[in-house]
Amino acid sequence: MITVLLDGDGGVSFADKVDPVPAAGEALVRVLKAGICSTDLELKRGYMEFRGIPGHEFVGVVESCDSRPDLVGRRVVSEINVACRECDLCRRELERHCRNRSVLGILGRPGAFAELLSMPVRNLHAVPDAIPDDRALFVEPVAAAFEILEQVEVLLGDSILVIGDGRLGSLCARVLHRTGARVSVLGKHERKQEPLRKDGISTLDPKGQPEKSFDIVVEASGSPGGLERALWWVRPRGTVVLKTTCVGKHDVSLAPVVVDEITLVGSRCGPFKPALLALERGDLRPEETIDARYPLVNVEKAFAKAEEPGVRKVILEITD
Amino acid sequence: MITVLLDGDGGVSFADKVDPVPAAGEALVRVLKAGICSTDLELKRGYMEFRGIPGHEFVGVVESCDSRPDLVGRRVVSEINVACRECDLCRRELERHCRNRSVLGILGRPGAFAELLSMPVRNLHAVPDAIPDDRALFVEPVAAAFEILEQVEVLLGDSILVIGDGRLGSLCARVLHRTGARVSVLGKHERKQEPLRKDGISTLDPKGQPEKSFDIVVEASGSPGGLERALWWVRPRGTVVLKTTCVGKHDVSLAPVVVDEITLVGSRCGPFKPALLALERGDLRPEETIDARYPLVNVEKAFAKAEEPGVRKVILEITD
Repeated sequence: MITVLLDGDGGVSFADKVDPVPAAGEALVRVLKAGICSTDLELKRGYMEFRGIPGHEFVGVVESCDSRPDLVGRRVVSEINVACRECDLCRRELERHCRNRSVLGILGRPGAFAELLSMPVRNLHAVPDAIPDDRALFVEPVAAAFEILEQVEVLLGDSILVIGDGRLGSLCARVLHRTGARVSVLGKHERKQEPLRKDGISTLDPKGQPEKSFDIVVEASGSPGGLERALWWVRPRGTVVLKTTCVGKHDVSLAPVVVDEITLVGSRCGPFKPALLALERGDLRPEETIDARYPLVNVEKAFAKAEEPGVRKVILEITD
Repeated sequence: MITVLLDGDGGVSFADKVDPVPAAGEALVRVLKAGICSTDLELKRGYMEFRGIPGHEFVGVVESCDSRPDLVGRRVVSEINVACRECDLCRRELERHCRNRSVLGILGRPGAFAELLSMPVRNLHAVPDAIPDDRALFVEPVAAAFEILEQVEVLLGDSILVIGDGRLGSLCARVLHRTGARVSVLGKHERKQEPLRKDGISTLDPKGQPEKSFDIVVEASGSPGGLERALWWVRPRGTVVLKTTCVGKHDVSLAPVVVDEITLVGSRCGPFKPALLALERGDLRPEETIDARYPLVNVEKAFAKAEEPGVRKVILEITD
């Protein structure tokens, strides 16, 4: 099968590899489409010392599955963390944090920028017919946005600032907006903000706002400077949700965290069920943010496009 | 009256100042004893750009009080944040975070390293007879330790690591130990740890412990490097309580906070009522950590002593 390879030093190349052989309890999945996420761009630059096949946002069709033959031919998406189900964290039902986990396209497991991949059946979710392929490949980032609601109590009328109008920031804003909270987005790209405003999400003019005025700030800027801005905007005893994973260190004073008793919550992968439900109902139509499509052979161009400022989603079309 | 003055550049000196004149609703308090806290040492070094009379841990006697003459002659301690009671945070019952607050000996209000001070009556708590003076002056730091229980749900059997065996770290360990949690302290000073062990708190040999193994880590080391160690010890989805306020910036990678979905909780001043109750019952006897006593005239020596490694509490005896 044809795959994409990262060399961990900025290089993106191609390879023709043998097809994966599913382990017991796994299904072989043919990838239809896959999305490029900021984490993929970070992996390319060396994050996690990653080498191999990246990609963790995808929709595919089950090609074979010994343990669940009924799944063959079904469209599926997949939770990305593969847990051992034996360690202390798995026993606490924290499988997404399993000590021995592999993570699709991120840690110890080949990813979705390939014609085929193998994943445990228990990670797979069948995609309802009402969700088109283009929308289905957003389940993983939409779930990551829903994770905020698993971690932080959002009250009706809370004022929430999302820093970053990029791919993840926009999804977080839309998911939070559904709760009845007052959501504002702070970003740089007029083109990304216009559709948010159309849906009732305000886009902030920083000059007009007093500091320490938001109950919750979601830091999804993708830049190390975002945390300092988050600490400027959040009110005392408020909450900052950290969504940005960066290579390298933060250089930030955390004295305000102590003095103002701020809660910082790191937030990563989330629950697929509410994400699939919201996508099925059409409450969220993230496919409208697809700005470019490339076949797998043009993956280098796809990465370059995804890195351009102002570009929203870039996807790879892998199987017709 | 005689007072201590900090010049904001490391200098500690004396002054003879006019007695404070209580505003409406305030009481004039004669200071009996006051404790030197790590924050005072930071203020001396320039934290908060502080200049003036420091000191916020004290026990005193009410000398005069127009609005509550019944308090005259009573021993009192005082909550340190003076709130406006009008701003949005005061209306949310977050008076300790009032936007217009002054803070005794820290921000816009002369402190307790003086013969007299003036505080609003509503900040004062009468000290029960069972609490000796030496113990009463620990109410403020004991309340700061109890603040953790207001912010974080501690479950019976939770494993908690306190980083730092200094003044605040030891109090946090003792307060948390009372909950039934399994508390360990990581510190450098055998002399400070021996009394903790006697009370059933284990003192950690870092070599014997796996990383990411504690449910809750309290960072009370007073050093900027403490956070990185806290992130090493806390388990995924665990909580780090930040008690250390430092001058300057942290240089730390927060990627583990996101990947492991850690919650960081800044924690500052706390509730006086449970602190007074614990001190009255004798559950906590922090006066046993007093290592040195100085009259106000020897304040420079007192600060120098408090800065020596391994020294626990240093107090100023102000009025006989």
